[in-house]
Amino acid sequence: MEDLTHDLFLGGRLKIRQPRSGYRAGVDPVLLAAAVPARTGQSVLDLGCGVGAASLCLGARVPGLSLFGVELQDGYAELARRNAAENGIDLVVTGADLAALPVDLRARSFDHVIANPPYFLRAQGSAAPDAGRETALAEATPLTLWVETATRRLAPGGWLTLIQRAERLPELLAALDTRLGSVDLLPLAPRVGRPAKLVILRARKGARGTFRLHSPLILHEGSRHERDADSYTPAVSAVLRHAAALPWPGR
Amino acid sequence: MEDLTHDLFLGGRLKIRQPRSGYRAGVDPVLLAAAVPARTGQSVLDLGCGVGAASLCLGARVPGLSLFGVELQDGYAELARRNAAENGIDLVVTGADLAALPVDLRARSFDHVIANPPYFLRAQGSAAPDAGRETALAEATPLTLWVETATRRLAPGGWLTLIQRAERLPELLAALDTRLGSVDLLPLAPRVGRPAKLVILRARKGARGTFRLHSPLILHEGSRHERDADSYTPAVSAVLRHAAALPWPGR
Repeated sequence: MEDLTHDLFLGGRLKIRQPRSGYRAGVDPVLLAAAVPARTGQSVLDLGCGVGAASLCLGARVPGLSLFGVELQDGYAELARRNAAENGIDLVVTGADLAALPVDLRARSFDHVIANPPYFLRAQGSAAPDAGRETALAEATPLTLWVETATRRLAPGGWLTLIQRAERLPELLAALDTRLGSVDLLPLAPRVGRPAKLVILRARKGARGTFRLHSPLILHEGSRHERDADSYTPAVSAVLRHAAALPWPGR
Repeated sequence: MEDLTHDLFLGGRLKIRQPRSGYRAGVDPVLLAAAVPARTGQSVLDLGCGVGAASLCLGARVPGLSLFGVELQDGYAELARRNAAENGIDLVVTGADLAALPVDLRARSFDHVIANPPYFLRAQGSAAPDAGRETALAEATPLTLWVETATRRLAPGGWLTLIQRAERLPELLAALDTRLGSVDLLPLAPRVGRPAKLVILRARKGARGTFRLHSPLILHEGSRHERDADSYTPAVSAVLRHAAALPWPGR
């Protein structure tokens, strides 16, 4: 990972190094972090933390969290540690496969588990020009394993917060663990009237509330792309530029 | 079924008899029928047709369909036949359990299968004051069996259109058959910004398109209930009062 960029997040509150050509953190981990209902003093496990973007965004918004990340790929895990140190945020990163977490992580439970699982199915038979990007984008691990691992690591009453492409919603909902309840699904649509591109799922271990499909959060103003300037809606701009929490619909 | 009401649908185009105190057709079968992309000459199978509301609404909108209904409960099946005859719409109703369709239905396939499966889980241990209502509202048959039976009966390229409560979306999407593709999910929200109460799912047998979560269809104008007068949005009012098709989002 020689060729890195150094990118600003949360209006400059964070500066994150990431590979120029591999998997790159965009708005997704920022929105994920903004949806986590974490409070000072709580513990958070970030499954597949990559360069640490989601955990660091969460740590920048909520002080005094105990942040833990798990990342399969050594290069990303190392960058996550470096990004945490350079931003002065405590993030303990373990290099591990989430199918085989080390015993010290398996011995504890967390108030929150967050995840931004890889979005794309691995293209069958295609050569990978960049092995890191391939693993970060590919479906090496089925969504059921992400949800099951997350649910296991949650304390009773703990929250799972997960972001995923809307087109994988059937697979995501089929993966829901019966130990999770009060499942909220927030669609994220690029503009009013458009299909959702992403969904954020939030659920609570041991809760009994029914599933809710919420009104979509709209990312951009206007009905189409009209200029290159920032067109984010006020709620989204507050998240991306000012480290605000995402306004989560009530139950 | 002695105590019946005689209710107007589609702005008076249909007059449907149904039990006063049992399961009663509301806007749901009307919206379901309006979402079916049926054309003159095609065949339609209505699983769990009840008193025939969805099939008759579809027949009133699209002339020249071959309509078939399956209904487990004899009283409802008989009413469906009577409603069809009284409204001058050809609807062949078979009294059968969808887990055991008679051989003449199993021998053929359909351009469309539609379904409005019972919404509620059977309350465990509760006595049923009205056995008909109990079966119509209760989950006697898991959603997987509805979707599987529907998929079997579809011709290649045929369409499944199904309406269900939004809170059962995880179960519905987990039930999706791999033979179904290009799955569209349209949330129906009572008002702008509110969670969806219902969803309409539309899918095509053998199609390869990805799943789409569409922008919700809003049923009522305004942010809250302000008067008892008709507050439906124009698109929904056109469906309910003027037998229009539901404007279905493009792919």
